[in-house]
Amino acid sequence: MPPQSRSALPEPQSFDRVLSSMCTAPHPVARAAAERYLGTNPGDPESYAGVADLEARTVDLLGTVVGLEDPHGYVPAGGTEANIQAVRAARNLGSSSSPNVVAPESAHFSFHKAAEILEVELRTTPVDDDFRADPDAMAAAADEDTVLLVGVAGSTEYGRVDPIPDLAAVAQSVGARVHVDAAFGGFLLPFTGHQWHFDHAAIDTMTIDPHKAGQSAIPAGGFIARDHETLDALAVETPYLESESQVTLGGTRSGAGVASAFAAISELWPDGYEAEFERTMGLADWLAGALESRGEDPIEPSLPLVTSEMDAEVFEALRSAGWRVARTGDGALRIVLMPHVTKEMLQAFLKDLDRIRG
Amino acid sequence: MPPQSRSALPEPQSFDRVLSSMCTAPHPVARAAAERYLGTNPGDPESYAGVADLEARTVDLLGTVVGLEDPHGYVPAGGTEANIQAVRAARNLGSSSSPNVVAPESAHFSFHKAAEILEVELRTTPVDDDFRADPDAMAAAADEDTVLLVGVAGSTEYGRVDPIPDLAAVAQSVGARVHVDAAFGGFLLPFTGHQWHFDHAAIDTMTIDPHKAGQSAIPAGGFIARDHETLDALAVETPYLESESQVTLGGTRSGAGVASAFAAISELWPDGYEAEFERTMGLADWLAGALESRGEDPIEPSLPLVTSEMDAEVFEALRSAGWRVARTGDGALRIVLMPHVTKEMLQAFLKDLDRIRG
Repeated sequence: MPPQSRSALPEPQSFDRVLSSMCTAPHPVARAAAERYLGTNPGDPESYAGVADLEARTVDLLGTVVGLEDPHGYVPAGGTEANIQAVRAARNLGSSSSPNVVAPESAHFSFHKAAEILEVELRTTPVDDDFRADPDAMAAAADEDTVLLVGVAGSTEYGRVDPIPDLAAVAQSVGARVHVDAAFGGFLLPFTGHQWHFDHAAIDTMTIDPHKAGQSAIPAGGFIARDHETLDALAVETPYLESESQVTLGGTRSGAGVASAFAAISELWPDGYEAEFERTMGLADWLAGALESRGEDPIEPSLPLVTSEMDAEVFEALRSAGWRVARTGDGALRIVLMPHVTKEMLQAFLKDLDRIRG
Repeated sequence: MPPQSRSALPEPQSFDRVLSSMCTAPHPVARAAAERYLGTNPGDPESYAGVADLEARTVDLLGTVVGLEDPHGYVPAGGTEANIQAVRAARNLGSSSSPNVVAPESAHFSFHKAAEILEVELRTTPVDDDFRADPDAMAAAADEDTVLLVGVAGSTEYGRVDPIPDLAAVAQSVGARVHVDAAFGGFLLPFTGHQWHFDHAAIDTMTIDPHKAGQSAIPAGGFIARDHETLDALAVETPYLESESQVTLGGTRSGAGVASAFAAISELWPDGYEAEFERTMGLADWLAGALESRGEDPIEPSLPLVTSEMDAEVFEALRSAGWRVARTGDGALRIVLMPHVTKEMLQAFLKDLDRIRG
């Protein structure tokens, strides 16, 4: 029986109509680990040594996923923090007094947030016909003040994977660092033929989110760097903590997130993730086919994410029917096939779509 | 029975020797709420409307605690995020091209982090003999480029409360904003005679951490602003979220933290917090007396936090004996009397101290 409380908390939403989120119901082992570690703070490793050790082990596991033998990094609150940190490290390590970052227009809005916060210029470049970064456009936008090129490995809107090795070559030619945002793609791409990680190209930093396809509880991001120099560029001195410096954006941090990520990756890497990728990728292809058969023109999915043009009126009616669906900046319906999404959910969704369109 | 897992997670540390942390074991209702809301993300209010509503209600509750009838704000990951956001808002709303922030040297190191990230100058000023901010020193350090004055209501090292109304007067004279960091003090000071909150002085923003003396699970901070203009200054556009903009530093955020803060404050404000303040303040006075009777010279506690000069050797021996204790920048032993700390713990600690000193 839950403890008595003066506050009647409503039931949290169920996932049975959530098609818009890149988060999902935590895996049972991830949930159990989060519950056990709710009272721990890896931000204070001298008070909470156990969870700080778990964080180091989680970074090692993430290194395995992203093709890096000796990874440096930590478990940030999420992808936004990791992306901010990548820009911050590049700014701090660069020598420009008016630094800029070049990113495809498909990059997550957290790069706009990072640019505003860190006072760097963000130069966004057009994507190609398949919504992927265009290395030539990025090369043209870069100059001697460019400290970082951003590539996306699993874009938020279309699930596209940028040509990372080509972007790395551009970065090398202008002396900039390379960051890959694999927040969404990190636990999916290992089971594809894409070239996206540290072993495929001269990447400096990467974002990979255990609390997305990694099936961890929130908050559990991943900020992974090739060199320790990157972390040094983020270090701030910490008096009255027995540790000497802190590289994270946050201070007190969630041990629940760290333990949850550790448990999920230990449990699911690689077979569990592979099975889930196959299942959700299959669902994406099936959904795209089902939309096509209804006269829609969905974009061919490259990861478990389906987009398709949709009248605003139909979209609103779907939301009114309780479906948590989202739109791309261009107004296309966007459905993310996360672990909680089943074929039955999609069938119910299509039934409502058919009803709405009459 | 917990789910089977390939990863054997070690037991999280117990709190029975933790005297160094400003976090604590979550209250049972806070823990229950966190567990129920592990799979929610208030950073995506259109997908997770329930928890977004809980966050708004939590901000209202926090407003009650900090003397503000119509509060604006949100539940950040913790005090560091809230402090960064206060500096960011002041920088963005100010008109200086080389902005500076004036803070007492007792301010939390997150202000150094904020200054580095946001590229503002941090000017720290000496504290008085009682470790409190000196308004004259802050006035002398401020100039026309000063966008923010920081006051601390419950300092991390000594638990001291700055003269907030005097700092607000200084800020007014130079046209700067005022931020009060009540991360530690916010759930303790309502039961003292201190002048520290929005109803006591012309404060613009405040940090108050439910996951410290508020007894919430981590991560649950509080960033509270008097005006909505402050949040507008932090807003970044959000394509492909159905909400239009995002003011938070993070993207995906912990619904567990939000629900936990809501449950804890609903349950404990004000009587439960008052009782806990009385208990822990009593423990602080008792511990200070016990140290004094051993020939030590502890600083008189003003909140439930005791500091006392201590030989480095003795300190190390205490840590080797398993005590999670910390030191101030000056090397003084620093013990925080959080809700998990009991008289029995302190008696055991003193017994070890006596044994070590022979």
